[in-house]
Amino acid sequence: MAHTFAIGIDIGGTNTDLGLVRSDGVCTTRANFPTRDCSDSDVFIERICTTIGNLLNDNGNPEIEGVGIGAPNGNYLTGSIEEASNLPALSNLPIKSILEKRLGTHVEVSNDANAAALGEMVYGGAKDLQDFVTITLGTGVGSGIVINRRLLLGVHGNAGEIGHSILVPDGRPCSCGRHGCVEEYTSARGICKTFIELRNAMDSYNGMLDGFSDEQLSPKLIAEAAQQGDALSIETFAKTGYYLGLACANVVSHLAPQKIFLMGGPTQAGALLMNPTLQSFEDNLLSIYRGQVEIELSHLKANDAAILGAAALVS
Amino acid sequence: MAHTFAIGIDIGGTNTDLGLVRSDGVCTTRANFPTRDCSDSDVFIERICTTIGNLLNDNGNPEIEGVGIGAPNGNYLTGSIEEASNLPALSNLPIKSILEKRLGTHVEVSNDANAAALGEMVYGGAKDLQDFVTITLGTGVGSGIVINRRLLLGVHGNAGEIGHSILVPDGRPCSCGRHGCVEEYTSARGICKTFIELRNAMDSYNGMLDGFSDEQLSPKLIAEAAQQGDALSIETFAKTGYYLGLACANVVSHLAPQKIFLMGGPTQAGALLMNPTLQSFEDNLLSIYRGQVEIELSHLKANDAAILGAAALVS
Repeated sequence: MAHTFAIGIDIGGTNTDLGLVRSDGVCTTRANFPTRDCSDSDVFIERICTTIGNLLNDNGNPEIEGVGIGAPNGNYLTGSIEEASNLPALSNLPIKSILEKRLGTHVEVSNDANAAALGEMVYGGAKDLQDFVTITLGTGVGSGIVINRRLLLGVHGNAGEIGHSILVPDGRPCSCGRHGCVEEYTSARGICKTFIELRNAMDSYNGMLDGFSDEQLSPKLIAEAAQQGDALSIETFAKTGYYLGLACANVVSHLAPQKIFLMGGPTQAGALLMNPTLQSFEDNLLSIYRGQVEIELSHLKANDAAILGAAALVS
Repeated sequence: MAHTFAIGIDIGGTNTDLGLVRSDGVCTTRANFPTRDCSDSDVFIERICTTIGNLLNDNGNPEIEGVGIGAPNGNYLTGSIEEASNLPALSNLPIKSILEKRLGTHVEVSNDANAAALGEMVYGGAKDLQDFVTITLGTGVGSGIVINRRLLLGVHGNAGEIGHSILVPDGRPCSCGRHGCVEEYTSARGICKTFIELRNAMDSYNGMLDGFSDEQLSPKLIAEAAQQGDALSIETFAKTGYYLGLACANVVSHLAPQKIFLMGGPTQAGALLMNPTLQSFEDNLLSIYRGQVEIELSHLKANDAAILGAAALVS
């Protein structure tokens, strides 16, 4: 069967990544430019169009199904990026209609978490699933919900903020201004907070991360220390898994998806995170759902996931 | 416009209620019989058929669109009632197909919480809504989720157990065997537990419910005492509202519905429950959802809600 192609664009605060994605989920060619190099939205649009032109040119100008764009605060319903805090010039720009006119092709915009869910559906582990959820652990915690193979958007396009459901009433202060959100316990920041809380609760800590200040910590460092046997680091992942499994059990009580896919940097800790997560999920799952829902790591390669997700918007 | 009709049946542990429901949401005639009078499923089916025959006969034998059945553990996907603990003979009986053969009409089965959501959609306050949630406070807490005007069922037909999402990690023990479920804080039982906790925390309680043992308490009694100024009873509803508003804010973080409808016995406390619920909802709602979601009491009359919900399954 002949392959079809789509362009996926992941607009981040630092870089804008573009890729030509083949219908079997292979990103054949990539390009990127620093988002902040663009002084205004005209320059940004120009840069996008030129880069797409080059990508297609380099690949024999295949016909494409469209251009999908993932960005924080990208809104599928309005076709624009709301409050693009890292590039204010893009805020509320009708980027979908502008690019459709310029490129003469189908363009869709979505937030990166929803795009990730579609990426899993079109190219990853959810090809045969009806209902599933993806949870992306990163600086924050994003999520995408698919019901009957359609993204759950809500009438305002902002459904699926599982990272901001309140897991611990009156818990840790969250960047959103409230307390106890899932994000504060399971994001990269949350993992570091757990380590710091545990370290501060000790009389003295002489472990592997002894020389690191709070600010120097990262899930990667903590995972490396845990893999080398640092007890506090192991406990950090055990607690993170407890919270993540609990959050997933609550997702099931609402949605009863067939699977929950986890992705994002902290999931690279592998079994360190997954084992306690699965244990907590099992412990906290309402019994009627036992055996009906699985938690898995995303089937998409970490480096390609954002571009594949964006491309899936038009595939 | 000529009205159409449907039969709604609410199978409860104590009584089975039947009603002829007109398309404008009026339950024109009702009948009922004690569920436990039926020694086995054959007797039960016979009783259902006879009662429907009488209902139609008494109303000039109107043509009906079908028969809808609401029951705890009713499963829309299988057309049967799973684990009918109050009438074991009905457990896993293919009641939909049996009644369709006997009556020659369309029959649907659902759990009572999902039926309530459809009742709100067809006859109540959700006629013009795309996405909404109903939460029924009773002995337990049931919920129905509607997305794009379709019930969210999940592939096993058991989605939407919001009453069993965990609101307070390691909180009150729940009848489901876990801890801290929404149900343990917002059901009739939960309200009484809150009162008892508050009473036990006092050195001495000389309020209006002084003479009542833990077992004698009910939300109705506590509401009456609160309306007469009993401080502990008022505080009980304030705490209940706090938990209910928090649970609703978490529903929004998952689903972003347009409205959440509350129904069931404890909602008869009115402003006593609603004011603290709305305040807590406002306090705990992620800011992006502000002004987008309303909490309201069900628009269905309490006495008719179960029958209307059942009838809505086929309307």
